[in-house]
Amino acid sequence: MEIRRALDIVLNNTTVLEGEKVSLIESLNRVLAANISSKDDLPPFDKSSMDGYALKSSDTTDGLFRFKIVGSIRAGDFLDEEIKSGEAVKIMTGAAVPKGADAVIQIEKVKAEGNELRVFEKVCCGTNILKKGEEIKNGDMVFESGKFLRPSEVGMLASLGYGKVDCHKVPKIILISTGDELVDIDEKITRGKVRNCNEYALTALVKNLNGHVKSYGIIKDNRDEIFNAVKTAFEEGDIVISSGGVSVGDYDFIEEVLKKIGADIKFTSVEIKPGKPVTFATFKDKLFFGLPGNPLSVVNTFEVFVAPAIKKMMGRKDIITKEFPVILKDDFKSKGDRENYTYVNIKENGGNYYAYSMGSQSSNALFTLTQSNGIVIIKKGTKTVRAGETLNGKFIFK
Amino acid sequence: MEIRRALDIVLNNTTVLEGEKVSLIESLNRVLAANISSKDDLPPFDKSSMDGYALKSSDTTDGLFRFKIVGSIRAGDFLDEEIKSGEAVKIMTGAAVPKGADAVIQIEKVKAEGNELRVFEKVCCGTNILKKGEEIKNGDMVFESGKFLRPSEVGMLASLGYGKVDCHKVPKIILISTGDELVDIDEKITRGKVRNCNEYALTALVKNLNGHVKSYGIIKDNRDEIFNAVKTAFEEGDIVISSGGVSVGDYDFIEEVLKKIGADIKFTSVEIKPGKPVTFATFKDKLFFGLPGNPLSVVNTFEVFVAPAIKKMMGRKDIITKEFPVILKDDFKSKGDRENYTYVNIKENGGNYYAYSMGSQSSNALFTLTQSNGIVIIKKGTKTVRAGETLNGKFIFK
Repeated sequence: MEIRRALDIVLNNTTVLEGEKVSLIESLNRVLAANISSKDDLPPFDKSSMDGYALKSSDTTDGLFRFKIVGSIRAGDFLDEEIKSGEAVKIMTGAAVPKGADAVIQIEKVKAEGNELRVFEKVCCGTNILKKGEEIKNGDMVFESGKFLRPSEVGMLASLGYGKVDCHKVPKIILISTGDELVDIDEKITRGKVRNCNEYALTALVKNLNGHVKSYGIIKDNRDEIFNAVKTAFEEGDIVISSGGVSVGDYDFIEEVLKKIGADIKFTSVEIKPGKPVTFATFKDKLFFGLPGNPLSVVNTFEVFVAPAIKKMMGRKDIITKEFPVILKDDFKSKGDRENYTYVNIKENGGNYYAYSMGSQSSNALFTLTQSNGIVIIKKGTKTVRAGETLNGKFIFK
Repeated sequence: MEIRRALDIVLNNTTVLEGEKVSLIESLNRVLAANISSKDDLPPFDKSSMDGYALKSSDTTDGLFRFKIVGSIRAGDFLDEEIKSGEAVKIMTGAAVPKGADAVIQIEKVKAEGNELRVFEKVCCGTNILKKGEEIKNGDMVFESGKFLRPSEVGMLASLGYGKVDCHKVPKIILISTGDELVDIDEKITRGKVRNCNEYALTALVKNLNGHVKSYGIIKDNRDEIFNAVKTAFEEGDIVISSGGVSVGDYDFIEEVLKKIGADIKFTSVEIKPGKPVTFATFKDKLFFGLPGNPLSVVNTFEVFVAPAIKKMMGRKDIITKEFPVILKDDFKSKGDRENYTYVNIKENGGNYYAYSMGSQSSNALFTLTQSNGIVIIKKGTKTVRAGETLNGKFIFK
């Protein structure tokens, strides 16, 4: 199956998770599930934006003016009396401007001695005053449902008094590593064995998307064990990811197990390199991704198929990482039988992006990935691309 | 003080934190504090990259060949016997290639009936075999100290058997919000009061940099309370951030408190808008940032001065966010007295970046920030810039 069609199938079968109330700090990097409107005017009162003196601007024309200082207002305080012509009140940044005053002159621009203030310039009405409701009015819609919450939005919600926020739930991802060749990462590798690195790479990938992750660890290549693991995973998680076990080998039981559970298998192979033997199935509103066993294939298929599904479930709109033109600095090869995601280092220079070879593109070559920050895409049917040619590329882990 | 000089002073006084052993999953988004070398060959044995049959390539020339299938090796297993001429062994992806074999032919390319295998093409030596140590040799340096650990690096470290990793410590940041005008975010705002949004914005900013954060909450504008808070914060944290209280108002005690504690005040004002009244001090190897009280000033000075210090402490090399040329789509104004960081929405189109006005640049205008994804920098001395002009800009929260 062609990559874009496979991705469409994945996304068409992915539903956005419902909302839940979370604390404001927990809402960071999540998506609003409801509109937010303001319950106050912001600022809630006419506010001084400077340390200075509040006065009537009409009292200042040209030349030198003397005012009587009748009081002082610090931030957090207010003055009940209205100020009269010829009077000034000392005021701190953020404090409420007293009734009668319509301007604040900065402390650096005046001379104060005892109760006398001397002003040397004309002040315009409104100077250094943030008007009540100038930023936001009571009842204004501030954020629409679907807004992704960054530090700035968290700060804004705090200023609006939202201690709890309605956000889309975060998907729970269950990891299953299959393969009798796998040993835990702190074990010695004996003949025929490899360490279970996919569990760690996948955990890190999910964490960076702000998803919840739980690993069932290594499951033996055995029908019943895999059946039990997948069945429990569908009960417990929103997305189940297996790695290993979806090739055509004699001991790959994933497809059989999915059928027995009653999952709806949507595809079992995609024209992508690395990562061809990738299975996607649904069971009720749960998703199953059967990724290959080789680490580069696992990361590649996660990025192309799983990451967009996780983002969509969270309510995010920026689901697909943008491609852009990349000029090759090295020659690259492909078999031409599938769309080839070639892992490279992309550098920007003078507004252009350039791709440098980082070595072996074997589906096993995790080391190449650690030296890369992006991919270039060699189209199906193309076997050789040369330095100087331009391909579409994108950054990884975005 | 000029911005770049102020930033140099901050970074020259920031020391990279020492290393500590952390679990592999905790090492994500942290920086290696020691070199990592491989304790194994990877792959640890000659490994089949396909499901197929292992055989001697010299047994295949042109035409049709018959082999005797003498066994089967699944992933995780191995075969003790050496295979002889005319023999083939069924092998799964990832399994160890048996002695005597030097090629694997894919299962899709052969016919097997009972013990007889028919091969229809010549196979070259090494086909579909990943050689022992092909990716990494025992003793090879894999990552140098200073490497930032992404999901790919976490996967690689797992495959190398590193269950624990030596990473630079993550700084602990203490937040102090000063100001009698502040109320907690779930309180009603009465006359003269505002909600303490800076604590939440700063917490979110630190969390997104993977730093530890602890807030002391709202501290009253009172010498003794501020003194005690800052003193304790220096004992407990690596970086102390206060917001509010560094202007020239009568109730701004931060500078006085820093002197009493014996901190070394490096600067108290920077030619930056928003955010001029920013204080930086050191106390032993601890850093103190006194940020202004207005939310846009807080975020701006955090991004320009605090974020680089946090990144440096963690051992990161990518400390400064890169600037790039941005073409203005709207006119913008500045007072010209300081370098003006104007918050805008930057959109990419055809390889160029364009800046759109998002409204008020008042240091209070948190709402503008929530609509922005970047800044453009209007140089000191420039009062007006017009649509069509090009300025330097950058993305925020990177």
